[in-house]
Amino acid sequence: MAQTPSLPRSLAVSGHTSGDELVLSAADLHDFARGAAFLGTGGGGDPYIGRLMAQNAIREFGHPKIISPEALADDATVAFVAMLGAPTVLNEKAASGADIDLAVTRLAERLGRPIDALMPAEIGGVNSAVPIVAAARLGIPLLNADGMGRAFPEIQMVVMNFEGIRATPFVIVDEHLNSVIVETGSARRAEEFVRSVAINMGLSCIVAGYPMTGAEAKRATVTGTLTEALEIGRAIEAGRKAGDAVGALVRRLSESAIYGHACDLFDGKIVDLRRETTAGFSMGHCRIVSLTDPSRTMDIQFQNENLVALENGAVKAIVPDLITIVDRETAEPIPTEALRYGQRVKVIAAAAPRLLTTPQALEYVHPRCFGLDFDFTPLVKPAD
Amino acid sequence: MAQTPSLPRSLAVSGHTSGDELVLSAADLHDFARGAAFLGTGGGGDPYIGRLMAQNAIREFGHPKIISPEALADDATVAFVAMLGAPTVLNEKAASGADIDLAVTRLAERLGRPIDALMPAEIGGVNSAVPIVAAARLGIPLLNADGMGRAFPEIQMVVMNFEGIRATPFVIVDEHLNSVIVETGSARRAEEFVRSVAINMGLSCIVAGYPMTGAEAKRATVTGTLTEALEIGRAIEAGRKAGDAVGALVRRLSESAIYGHACDLFDGKIVDLRRETTAGFSMGHCRIVSLTDPSRTMDIQFQNENLVALENGAVKAIVPDLITIVDRETAEPIPTEALRYGQRVKVIAAAAPRLLTTPQALEYVHPRCFGLDFDFTPLVKPAD
Repeated sequence: MAQTPSLPRSLAVSGHTSGDELVLSAADLHDFARGAAFLGTGGGGDPYIGRLMAQNAIREFGHPKIISPEALADDATVAFVAMLGAPTVLNEKAASGADIDLAVTRLAERLGRPIDALMPAEIGGVNSAVPIVAAARLGIPLLNADGMGRAFPEIQMVVMNFEGIRATPFVIVDEHLNSVIVETGSARRAEEFVRSVAINMGLSCIVAGYPMTGAEAKRATVTGTLTEALEIGRAIEAGRKAGDAVGALVRRLSESAIYGHACDLFDGKIVDLRRETTAGFSMGHCRIVSLTDPSRTMDIQFQNENLVALENGAVKAIVPDLITIVDRETAEPIPTEALRYGQRVKVIAAAAPRLLTTPQALEYVHPRCFGLDFDFTPLVKPAD
Repeated sequence: MAQTPSLPRSLAVSGHTSGDELVLSAADLHDFARGAAFLGTGGGGDPYIGRLMAQNAIREFGHPKIISPEALADDATVAFVAMLGAPTVLNEKAASGADIDLAVTRLAERLGRPIDALMPAEIGGVNSAVPIVAAARLGIPLLNADGMGRAFPEIQMVVMNFEGIRATPFVIVDEHLNSVIVETGSARRAEEFVRSVAINMGLSCIVAGYPMTGAEAKRATVTGTLTEALEIGRAIEAGRKAGDAVGALVRRLSESAIYGHACDLFDGKIVDLRRETTAGFSMGHCRIVSLTDPSRTMDIQFQNENLVALENGAVKAIVPDLITIVDRETAEPIPTEALRYGQRVKVIAAAAPRLLTTPQALEYVHPRCFGLDFDFTPLVKPAD
């Protein structure tokens, strides 16, 4: 499993996107991680651990080539690579690298052909970084795209599945390099097997799955999300300097071709928080009370990711739309496992990417798929 | 996955063993199933379901070639095939055949070479029949040997593991042809992953694993156990006609080169029985009271298989030695899931095969491995 480090590559232009290529400098990785944390909607693990992993891999192996799905040959082989588990556990362990190599290698062995490009399963948190690490270590190009345009807790909740691509063969590897390959008729069944193995592996594993062709990757992924995460992070940073971080964040999301509109739902202080790791997930909710009107409260319920925001019991935003809690001054996204009593926060919602709200997508990411007894009411741009 | 039925083979001589070959006729299968039920020590699933599966497969595909491990080339590839789950569930479902084919095929694919011979994981119950079905369906020779010389509940409890052979790659397939391939550093870790997947598959799956060479199969299996099961079944049948079924069973076991001695531990009636399917096993115990002296009781504790026999609290027999409850008149072995209140039974114990009592074997099948707080006191031949 040992990798020979590749020779240092020529220094790339910071954050430069030219045609089908994006290069993430060390400075960019800060912005990228912050943007990915926002898109992680509370889940996906700690983006700063992800950033450190990506920095180390780039230092050792050089920058991965990041390409647009459009640059793929139609018969290329693409797969995703990710960490899987409960964010509370993911933050205590980091992938060694050998586990990432093994997951991709096992998948290629099972397919009987090499993987031509890797992609993130989700753009949120640590899982925006794991594919960067994998692509750098293995010298395989990385797609500027992901399977969700956000983060979701389960493996059937990806655009590839909504668009009819098989989840399996699906590989799971633990830190001791034990590995499991799952092959099932449905992505939901794969999720059940994978979750039971992941629980046994201590809820911190590397997975590789959803092998597909280049042609499939072009139509069945959310494209441009690596660039989007970088731009969101940059907007927050620029907004801080200009004195309106949250405003800059909301404006950037509203201009995005992927999300299209967003709003600042609530401004308040966390007064109640319940969180437990159960059935392989970080489950819980928090309550926020308005700073100016104590009769107004917002409740946020989460399963790894934030699922629904209720103001005094009325739905203000709900999956598959994005809900992220951020620091009310700095707009720093706060993962569910970092929520604390007394934090002063704003709740930001953004419209889901188009491929998450199709009828076939809602079979997998409708609020009822998360056990919520609500309809999906898409976020509407507030009149202003 | 479709199999072309092989042409009918010439009718074989009933129960004939010549050199390295054993042929099981339909009549033999009755005796063989009864003998395997005895060696199953209460577990391994219902041998009569196994017999029907084997009969059907032989009718459709012809007799499998049964060979001695000595007949293998040293570089041949051998693996075991079995059903895995709780006997209470195994009896409600039977393997379709396609699941057996897929388990063996997936293992061969992962190894990158064909399987030259199959063997039973254990000689008990349904798992003495599944390899017959597999060998008949796939036209692969079957070894006259198994991994335990009895039945045990977990996959690390086989002679191959005691003798240093890796359990993995290990394949699990369910009735819907979902499949999982596990690769671990230890057999105990493989057991944990396999059990969690098996629970998710509804505790009735086909497994294939412990790939090894012919040279390994010669030294690290219990050889001759298919013949032994047949001879035990025949001895019971002959004993019934002579009016002493239990006596004939005990005599046959005492003459066996594999078991060497056996005894009739207890004669009584079942007065208490507790049984539940939990953590992937059929767990429980039963109490038997003497027919002649009500102050004498025997308690039998089981995890799929019978683990310990205590007379008024004192150990009379304990794993890895064999303990089987039989009908007191017919010596019919009674699996744990067929035990009933009021049954009149005898408890028979037999010495474990030599390879189960080595120091390295006792690391896996010592009474404490089953949560029993007793030393292993090998069965001694009673003075008579």
